[in-house]
Amino acid sequence: MVETRRQQIEDTASELFRERGYAATSVRDIARAVSLQGGSLYAHVASKEDVLWAIVVRAAGAFEAAAAATTSDAAGPAADRIRQLCRAHIRVLAADLGNASVFLTEWRFLGEARRDQVREMRDHYEGHFRELIAQGAASGEFRSVDVALTSTALLSTLNGVAIWYRPDGRLSPVEIADRYADLFAKALENR
Amino acid sequence: MVETRRQQIEDTASELFRERGYAATSVRDIARAVSLQGGSLYAHVASKEDVLWAIVVRAAGAFEAAAAATTSDAAGPAADRIRQLCRAHIRVLAADLGNASVFLTEWRFLGEARRDQVREMRDHYEGHFRELIAQGAASGEFRSVDVALTSTALLSTLNGVAIWYRPDGRLSPVEIADRYADLFAKALENR
Repeated sequence: MVETRRQQIEDTASELFRERGYAATSVRDIARAVSLQGGSLYAHVASKEDVLWAIVVRAAGAFEAAAAATTSDAAGPAADRIRQLCRAHIRVLAADLGNASVFLTEWRFLGEARRDQVREMRDHYEGHFRELIAQGAASGEFRSVDVALTSTALLSTLNGVAIWYRPDGRLSPVEIADRYADLFAKALENR
Repeated sequence: MVETRRQQIEDTASELFRERGYAATSVRDIARAVSLQGGSLYAHVASKEDVLWAIVVRAAGAFEAAAAATTSDAAGPAADRIRQLCRAHIRVLAADLGNASVFLTEWRFLGEARRDQVREMRDHYEGHFRELIAQGAASGEFRSVDVALTSTALLSTLNGVAIWYRPDGRLSPVEIADRYADLFAKALENR
């Protein structure tokens, strides 16, 4: 029951943070939206920042788990693995746009120690992309590129989907992922 | 003098919006940062939203002017023109990171009519990228792709630079632009 209530609080807070921004949302706003008194909310969460932190950790965990579940078989075609990583990323993003957006834009309002942890989590996650691009180049399938910059380009492209994606749009998450994966695989192809 | 003061107010507000977010910045915060009484600020600006609007219009104008100044010679190599557009975009972005970031992330806090105008300005600007990709495909230099999605990918990549660019980083704005342009030209190459 407490868990369910926390989850509800986090989901509601996530929507509010996304709409108004973290800084402009008060604990009272969150409490009102889940029909609790401001004081009662503190039985479930210690502070507004703790709610943001819970959302960020959950989102980071979902992206990490999805990427880790793609094959890490370095011998497989790198173009296939890019496709899997793109699908995993867009699937997580589209499954919970609110949380993903908050994770991507509002994490900067966390305290310094937590911001450092987010940077570590993001760097670890980006590592999946960097490794794949480096392995593709090592096997000769991909040309030699600036690995860090190319990973950043791909992640910027994928994260941009959080801004414009609409569930009723012309392309499904898988279609978007596949077109983007195709674009980057072509960009990297060694010929 | 009034113009200079306005400019100073906009630059200061831009920094505050970027750091704290628009919604969490008050007119009083802006006034304090430019050493004016809250009331005196209203001699220069009608409302906080007007300041945001001025910043957004200026940034949109700078991007549009830079893109329009690149050659629109449809007969020239599309790969060269992508490079010019990328350079123009990153130059504007790096020249005023504060304004560019506010333009990219805080415009959603404008009123509905102004948000519509921003969408129009952005759509017009994206048109430079869409046209170029479509013309490249028409001439046979580029392969046939989803023009809208590819333009969006390129712009997401370029706009991502606003998040991670540091003036003391390892790559200059021109180097970043050229590597990104090369990546997308390779992705689009018809062979």
